[in-house]
Amino acid sequence: MLVVMQAPATEEQVSAVCQKIESLGYRAHSIPGAERTAIGITGNKGEVEPGTLEEMAGVQEVIRVTKPYKLVSRDIKEDNTVIRFAGTDATIGGPALAIIAGPCAIENRDQAFAVAERVHRAGAQFFRGGAYKPRTSPYSFQGLGEEGLRIMAEIRQQFGMRIVTEAIDNESLELVEEYADVIQIGARNMQNFSLLKRAGRSRKPVLIKRGMSATLEEFLMAAEYVMSEGNYNVVLCERGVRTFADHTRNTLDLSVVPAVQRLSHLPIVVDPSHGTGKRNKVTPLSRAAVAVGADGLIVEVHHQPDKALSDGMQSLYPDQFDELMAQVRQIAPVVGRTVASTGPQMSPAPSTLSLT
Amino acid sequence: MLVVMQAPATEEQVSAVCQKIESLGYRAHSIPGAERTAIGITGNKGEVEPGTLEEMAGVQEVIRVTKPYKLVSRDIKEDNTVIRFAGTDATIGGPALAIIAGPCAIENRDQAFAVAERVHRAGAQFFRGGAYKPRTSPYSFQGLGEEGLRIMAEIRQQFGMRIVTEAIDNESLELVEEYADVIQIGARNMQNFSLLKRAGRSRKPVLIKRGMSATLEEFLMAAEYVMSEGNYNVVLCERGVRTFADHTRNTLDLSVVPAVQRLSHLPIVVDPSHGTGKRNKVTPLSRAAVAVGADGLIVEVHHQPDKALSDGMQSLYPDQFDELMAQVRQIAPVVGRTVASTGPQMSPAPSTLSLT
Amino acid sequence: MLVVMQAPATEEQVSAVCQKIESLGYRAHSIPGAERTAIGITGNKGEVEPGTLEEMAGVQEVIRVTKPYKLVSRDIKEDNTVIRFAGTDATIGGPALAIIAGPCAIENRDQAFAVAERVHRAGAQFFRGGAYKPRTSPYSFQGLGEEGLRIMAEIRQQFGMRIVTEAIDNESLELVEEYADVIQIGARNMQNFSLLKRAGRSRKPVLIKRGMSATLEEFLMAAEYVMSEGNYNVVLCERGVRTFADHTRNTLDLSVVPAVQRLSHLPIVVDPSHGTGKRNKVTPLSRAAVAVGADGLIVEVHHQPDKALSDGMQSLYPDQFDELMAQVRQIAPVVGRTVASTGPQMSPAPSTLSLT
Amino acid sequence: MLVVMQAPATEEQVSAVCQKIESLGYRAHSIPGAERTAIGITGNKGEVEPGTLEEMAGVQEVIRVTKPYKLVSRDIKEDNTVIRFAGTDATIGGPALAIIAGPCAIENRDQAFAVAERVHRAGAQFFRGGAYKPRTSPYSFQGLGEEGLRIMAEIRQQFGMRIVTEAIDNESLELVEEYADVIQIGARNMQNFSLLKRAGRSRKPVLIKRGMSATLEEFLMAAEYVMSEGNYNVVLCERGVRTFADHTRNTLDLSVVPAVQRLSHLPIVVDPSHGTGKRNKVTPLSRAAVAVGADGLIVEVHHQPDKALSDGMQSLYPDQFDELMAQVRQIAPVVGRTVASTGPQMSPAPSTLSLT
Repeated sequence: MLVVMQAPATEEQVSAVCQKIESLGYRAHSIPGAERTAIGITGNKGEVEPGTLEEMAGVQEVIRVTKPYKLVSRDIKEDNTVIRFAGTDATIGGPALAIIAGPCAIENRDQAFAVAERVHRAGAQFFRGGAYKPRTSPYSFQGLGEEGLRIMAEIRQQFGMRIVTEAIDNESLELVEEYADVIQIGARNMQNFSLLKRAGRSRKPVLIKRGMSATLEEFLMAAEYVMSEGNYNVVLCERGVRTFADHTRNTLDLSVVPAVQRLSHLPIVVDPSHGTGKRNKVTPLSRAAVAVGADGLIVEVHHQPDKALSDGMQSLYPDQFDELMAQVRQIAPVVGRTVASTGPQMSPAPSTLSLT
Repeated sequence: MLVVMQAPATEEQVSAVCQKIESLGYRAHSIPGAERTAIGITGNKGEVEPGTLEEMAGVQEVIRVTKPYKLVSRDIKEDNTVIRFAGTDATIGGPALAIIAGPCAIENRDQAFAVAERVHRAGAQFFRGGAYKPRTSPYSFQGLGEEGLRIMAEIRQQFGMRIVTEAIDNESLELVEEYADVIQIGARNMQNFSLLKRAGRSRKPVLIKRGMSATLEEFLMAAEYVMSEGNYNVVLCERGVRTFADHTRNTLDLSVVPAVQRLSHLPIVVDPSHGTGKRNKVTPLSRAAVAVGADGLIVEVHHQPDKALSDGMQSLYPDQFDELMAQVRQIAPVVGRTVASTGPQMSPAPSTLSLT
Repeated sequence: MLVVMQAPATEEQVSAVCQKIESLGYRAHSIPGAERTAIGITGNKGEVEPGTLEEMAGVQEVIRVTKPYKLVSRDIKEDNTVIRFAGTDATIGGPALAIIAGPCAIENRDQAFAVAERVHRAGAQFFRGGAYKPRTSPYSFQGLGEEGLRIMAEIRQQFGMRIVTEAIDNESLELVEEYADVIQIGARNMQNFSLLKRAGRSRKPVLIKRGMSATLEEFLMAAEYVMSEGNYNVVLCERGVRTFADHTRNTLDLSVVPAVQRLSHLPIVVDPSHGTGKRNKVTPLSRAAVAVGADGLIVEVHHQPDKALSDGMQSLYPDQFDELMAQVRQIAPVVGRTVASTGPQMSPAPSTLSLT
Repeated sequence: MLVVMQAPATEEQVSAVCQKIESLGYRAHSIPGAERTAIGITGNKGEVEPGTLEEMAGVQEVIRVTKPYKLVSRDIKEDNTVIRFAGTDATIGGPALAIIAGPCAIENRDQAFAVAERVHRAGAQFFRGGAYKPRTSPYSFQGLGEEGLRIMAEIRQQFGMRIVTEAIDNESLELVEEYADVIQIGARNMQNFSLLKRAGRSRKPVLIKRGMSATLEEFLMAAEYVMSEGNYNVVLCERGVRTFADHTRNTLDLSVVPAVQRLSHLPIVVDPSHGTGKRNKVTPLSRAAVAVGADGLIVEVHHQPDKALSDGMQSLYPDQFDELMAQVRQIAPVVGRTVASTGPQMSPAPSTLSLT
């Protein structure tokens, strides 16, 4: 159910409706829009009786939401969600493309800084890097853990980039929440509902990667899990799905971008690195992702891909990332987007680095 | 790496080799076989140098395991793993088929007992029922939690059936471990590596359902995660994979049964309920699962499927389960299997039940 | 549309209704059932107006068929279609399982006879062998063509087995029709509608293999194409579909067997050889196919698989086929089926063969 | 095998090598390149002995081609194949994007002309329309046949657009070859090898749509079938593959575009209409297809999509196609492409049309 408030409704009226909803045993989600506020009603004890709410002051109408996703839906919020980060111009979901780049895993301070310096210089506003790596084998490198998070916090300090990194369980989420700016939920955890709920209780934005065989509805429902706990800053991420096709590691499903945008107000970015698994496909598919209308890109870059501890095959060389950015910059305006130019703190930074 | 001990090696020799391995910073897994003991060496710091170990007393040879799964592999243990349950004849992986049956979710005491009485009477040695339900929607029934576990513990008490139920995170695993006999890891959590490791530190057997798009190798690696933590009682479960085919909810991949059995010593059971999602397909596919050589079945049964809180469409009526058991009983001997007859405590039990 | 005749309707009445239908510009398909005759009306000029037909003598009712498949449907014919072969006991769709076996391709007379002798002795009533091979590469062995057909005709002469072989275009179909007993349409041609129509104008039964990514509806519609041209002797064949799973060449979808049987009166057989692509999986999946309720098996057997010109990897050795038959013979009765014992002309035949 | 001639080799030398190859029982394919000529050797009787050829005049080297596709491969022809059409500037594979547009099926003269006028005006150099429609149901509209071809020939006459239309069997191919400029082989016939060979004996270019579950290798091998018969003017077309995803009719796999271009010299175009099956996804995916580097687009346009006899759901309105072209025109230069502006014969043409 969805309570649409009148355009001139006061904060007190909104608040009174929310209290009423909570008093009935449901949860109220007040979602301010450009013109009016909508209040989503969630809870798993069946539908609320609309009568009482319709009569309250400031209420325009009470709408039954038939789709399984409610807070995610454009029904509750017509205008796009734009996620902002205090102290920076970087946004996700706004007119500027969100460019998120960095190595698959943080391997050590030198590697992380070497990559950070290059992606920042090329125009990335967000730095990605894994501190907790979900690996198919228990015997593979599992990430540096908190040490990795600390290195990324230093990178934010140095370059001003916001940090995006994955949490794989409640413990790591606690730390990621502390050090990073965006909590990533990986494809393998897209239906780890316990983790999604925990992320929903965080105040940091959450980036959810599409599961390898997730339908559009399941993808949106993962976001609904986070939002149902009160965290409305969710970013979706297409990263390829699993099919019979064997020329790429996964099959990047770009059609999901307009499909998500039609149904939901949430931003969606594309990961062409996992989406293809092959370095030579990353730039063409990045161009395509921007052209299709994605709100951003998340790209793996490594200064020495052949020595990377994970995913080296799909990591771009820094020079290739420069080239990718140059191409993306040309396509963005066609779809009404902008791309930040080079990083603002670029000049002094490089000299302080000791590259391996 | 795998250290194969000589047939007459003593416990002291095995123990000395294990200590040596641990002293080198690796983990040693001593796996006794029918004829000789093998010691698996795991750890993510590269390969151990075989020289030192080869010279130790009782060691026959040191073998490099090139497959990514090590403890799971038949290389380390040639004979099938048989999981036994104290105080009962029930096994998983032995000559008797493991029949696991019950409702999708424990809804209340009456429902659970009504179903339990019938599946027990039909010959099930294991009772399944969800106390923690991973649901696509945050607004769907999420299970009774600990209350559900308590009901199942009573069912074990009453009927002697062992309890199989799903844990969805560390907290629920803690409780499942306490109340149940087998910890189920659901398909959506098959690559929730944090949960797999936690299950690996439990002393209860773990049943891992195949992820919706898991390859055979990923499936085996999920088991490897559990085993790498020291819990060697793992059961695999095929429950259908996601494909384009739309006549069933999932596509049940029975070929994975002989494929697993070829590579691994672990038992594998089949879930035709989730594997097809349609009541009328459950019995034919159960017959096929037994014929293909599965070590058991896990079947959803509900006394009132049309009133079930989840998965009613795929739950058998108790009479249909009786029929399924009758058919399976005829096929089992062809593949060298037996099926337990009716439940041993059946006569007095029904009279104490108040069926709804 | 479907005209259901009254139980005691005369042949003249049926004939009059058919003539009326044809006079309206449609095609009439008279399908005699166990109790009454139904007349299917097909044609692509929209629906016929039921009024006129309802008033005709002997007509019980006129039913609108809303499913896209009409002649294929159980709506038009409730009892199973049983395909019979003059001069032999062999049937497809009857209580006896149809066992179809032979090499992937006919390579030469000696090879074909060597295999034929063995599969006949083991109880196969049908011999399969490719004379026209649809190969992914234009440079691979494409089959012996008419020479292969001639060899198979000799095999029928010698062993009494009926011949099943693939036609890949109109020209080969003409010849297959002349020499063989069942015209096979391969998976790659399942939606070669032109070829299906041509097969529909033949008087020989047609076996249609499921396309690699065919839905159930598309599979049934392929049969409808053949039937719409007047050939009602159609056999469906599950041979595995294409998925992400890589432990078998295709993923054998046994659930399609009960799904077809629910919707259609046509028989369905299973090909575990192409369905798995691995020799060691053929026997377990054959057992499963019989257990699930298939009407027969089509199995590749070669006396020297490692020298086979195609599909050697998935061909059984004759001894393995003997073992398969022994196992299948035990499972068949559980599902109310019989399996023919050893070939009736077996004793004199072998002595005339010069095996390589 | 591949014979690479020296740069200054004469035509006589090339011809002598070809004769030698043919005399050995193989087929020679002389493929002139920008710098030198290569001669492909095909045939299914095993490898030729390189010695004799290496000694011939003008031969630089003889290379063993280990990939299954030979003539398709960049190994034999480094520079891109550009297909030209006499009497027009239109090309496929050149710097100008090939824009192919028109209705799914030719329904009648008025419909075809109404659509043709609009797509021509918008800049399409190629007109597509089905005269022979492969339909899942035998009772659906199967196309106008030769009458449809005649209408398209008139459209070429009137607007100068080249005609692309599908052949579904040898008979229709004969007629398509006569009337049209490009012979389309549909997705369902991608492995109809008999039809591919027939197309290979035509002198008209052949456009091959990727099969619904075709791997990259199978896709290239379909082209190899056509080329092996001597027709080297082949265009590949990505049109979506079948996966579990249900938000689009098929999953458009744009990564196959750079994958094809890496391995082959053949042009590849993208069909976003079948690739998504939804009108609102066609324009975003067209932008993406151009951005990824495709050599052209094939788009369904209908002046009255809601009245279309087939595929109305995915057909663009003419105004939407104008908008698509406007967007594509802006993206093309980023990837070094041009797009033809409006049709040269546009002004007088419309007045002669009687639009319905």
